[in-house]
Amino acid sequence: MSTDNLDNINGTYFDSYEDLEIHQLMLADKPRQDAYQSAILGSRDLFKDKTVLDVGTGTGILSIFCAQAGVKKVYAIEASNLARLAREVVRENGFEQVIEVFECKVEDFQLPSGADKVDIIVSEWMGFFLLHEGMLDSVIYARDKFLKPNGLMFPDTASILVAPCSVPNRFDDFDCLSGVSMKAFGRELRKQKADKPEILNVAAEHLLHEGHIMTWLDLKEVSTEDLNSFDMKEVMVIQNPGKFQGVCIWFDCTFPSVDSSPQNGVVLSTNPKCPATHWKQSVILLPEDACEEVDKLDPIAFSLSLTRNSDNCRRYNLQLTLLDVEKEEHGLPCDCVMTKCILMKAHLQKMEVE
Amino acid sequence: MSTDNLDNINGTYFDSYEDLEIHQLMLADKPRQDAYQSAILGSRDLFKDKTVLDVGTGTGILSIFCAQAGVKKVYAIEASNLARLAREVVRENGFEQVIEVFECKVEDFQLPSGADKVDIIVSEWMGFFLLHEGMLDSVIYARDKFLKPNGLMFPDTASILVAPCSVPNRFDDFDCLSGVSMKAFGRELRKQKADKPEILNVAAEHLLHEGHIMTWLDLKEVSTEDLNSFDMKEVMVIQNPGKFQGVCIWFDCTFPSVDSSPQNGVVLSTNPKCPATHWKQSVILLPEDACEEVDKLDPIAFSLSLTRNSDNCRRYNLQLTLLDVEKEEHGLPCDCVMTKCILMKAHLQKMEVE
Repeated sequence: MSTDNLDNINGTYFDSYEDLEIHQLMLADKPRQDAYQSAILGSRDLFKDKTVLDVGTGTGILSIFCAQAGVKKVYAIEASNLARLAREVVRENGFEQVIEVFECKVEDFQLPSGADKVDIIVSEWMGFFLLHEGMLDSVIYARDKFLKPNGLMFPDTASILVAPCSVPNRFDDFDCLSGVSMKAFGRELRKQKADKPEILNVAAEHLLHEGHIMTWLDLKEVSTEDLNSFDMKEVMVIQNPGKFQGVCIWFDCTFPSVDSSPQNGVVLSTNPKCPATHWKQSVILLPEDACEEVDKLDPIAFSLSLTRNSDNCRRYNLQLTLLDVEKEEHGLPCDCVMTKCILMKAHLQKMEVE
Repeated sequence: MSTDNLDNINGTYFDSYEDLEIHQLMLADKPRQDAYQSAILGSRDLFKDKTVLDVGTGTGILSIFCAQAGVKKVYAIEASNLARLAREVVRENGFEQVIEVFECKVEDFQLPSGADKVDIIVSEWMGFFLLHEGMLDSVIYARDKFLKPNGLMFPDTASILVAPCSVPNRFDDFDCLSGVSMKAFGRELRKQKADKPEILNVAAEHLLHEGHIMTWLDLKEVSTEDLNSFDMKEVMVIQNPGKFQGVCIWFDCTFPSVDSSPQNGVVLSTNPKCPATHWKQSVILLPEDACEEVDKLDPIAFSLSLTRNSDNCRRYNLQLTLLDVEKEEHGLPCDCVMTKCILMKAHLQKMEVE
């Protein structure tokens, strides 16, 4: 990609964040806010007297949580002109001695001369299906350049999860709407929006499976190259019967905690079973003629790939392929209803008994 | 306005309706759907064997309600290419003998040769604060050209209502958001959006007054010229104490009913006290330094004008002016706490007793 092109993409990207309505949406997202607030204020011992880099501070709220947690210094970086607003918010909270806001890309940022590397990087970089927006690259850049060895990342892990689902409000609701058959409308709507995943709230009861992890990222280790493509190929055994009409993608992030035991850490989850966030879920709808009614223990098979778009590194191409359950290799043991799996399971159980 | 300019405006206007997401939003608006459905199917005697013109049929759902109510013929007009989709919806409901869809502007429509004028015009033409979109002009044109004398309009009246209100999610919520003072953000957000009314759901308890009618339109009589400007000047006596932060605008529409008694008619109301619709309410926010805490029986005074934009006839300019309650004429009697009104009210009561 030419630098010109990247400049264009970045220009559009940072401009979009100057529309305050986006920030209003994020600030109104309570699960998002609560997760960062609990993770930071619940770990005051980790933050006390430390230096923090806040990558993409936006309105500055994460930097303020850090200041409330007793840090010595926050370098808050914001590439859009929202930096000026963040500076005002810092002032109105009385933290201008603690938080310094820099209006620049993190790639152009330099630590003040004489300043040490930072102890902690805080950032809210997640996009739809985790990777959309491609902002994690900047956080990785910041980590490699500015974070002390053994420094902390908030969040420090991210997982992408995937499950088959029903999407009645894209399919079945149009079968009879106020006593009128509107199937043609539903069909046309799906066609019009087929070029990208649908961002919508999937109801927990519309998941046909609790979900499998597509990828798990250790944010202290992951590299930019690791983000270029992700693949999964799965045979999933249906847990809740229903109409298989789409594949639902969501993400979870975890944060470090004082006693570093995972069960005490905060999780920001965009699972359909958790309170809704502004990320909702990303759903790849199936073509209508590929949809089928599935029963408990039916196997379904598909492959899914997320590949960075070669023209716009902030975007990903998603590719879903339905596979033939007869031809794919199933788990071992597999709970599905297919004869070969029932036989194999019985055989394995018999061996275990003997 | 040049014809070129009008063509441009219409082009953009009709194109916007080709985005099916707008129609999805409308089809998901249950109060809207229910009102038309009850008005039409609840008045089968008015529709039986009649001919109907549906102005701006969109996905065709109102035409189908009419067909279900037993009409002889519906001419369904749609200027965007959604006409083709409406035709499919008509077919899937088995009404292709009853409903004929025409892809044209109603201004270019001609009744089939030999066809009589129509008995009923059905249309869903309402925009934000009733008038945004300026689609009522086309309905008036259709009425004057195609409706029989004494023909019916669905809906047949429309009112615009206005009340002072609090808007905490634009003001107070930013005072303390997750323990952080974000006043600067709220201020900036309001500044960024100051050029148009905010479209949002006002909670019923945030109305400071039940509302006054700004205008009432008899849709059988109203002319295009009548729509060019509306003005109101009001002294309102606060019914619910709170922060006066904005002026809330909504609309009600009524439909004819079989026994033509207004109390039996269906009302489609976008009042904050009624279930939310996709129109929400339109709110003109006050500048922060004009906001004040008001008590029950406090008088407030303002003037409001809606004037058609001279560059784009589908848009209106809204102008709100706060007035001095000392200088404005109050109602007679006025319930407010001002001395002159208390004295006047006592005087009037005394005269009544005598």
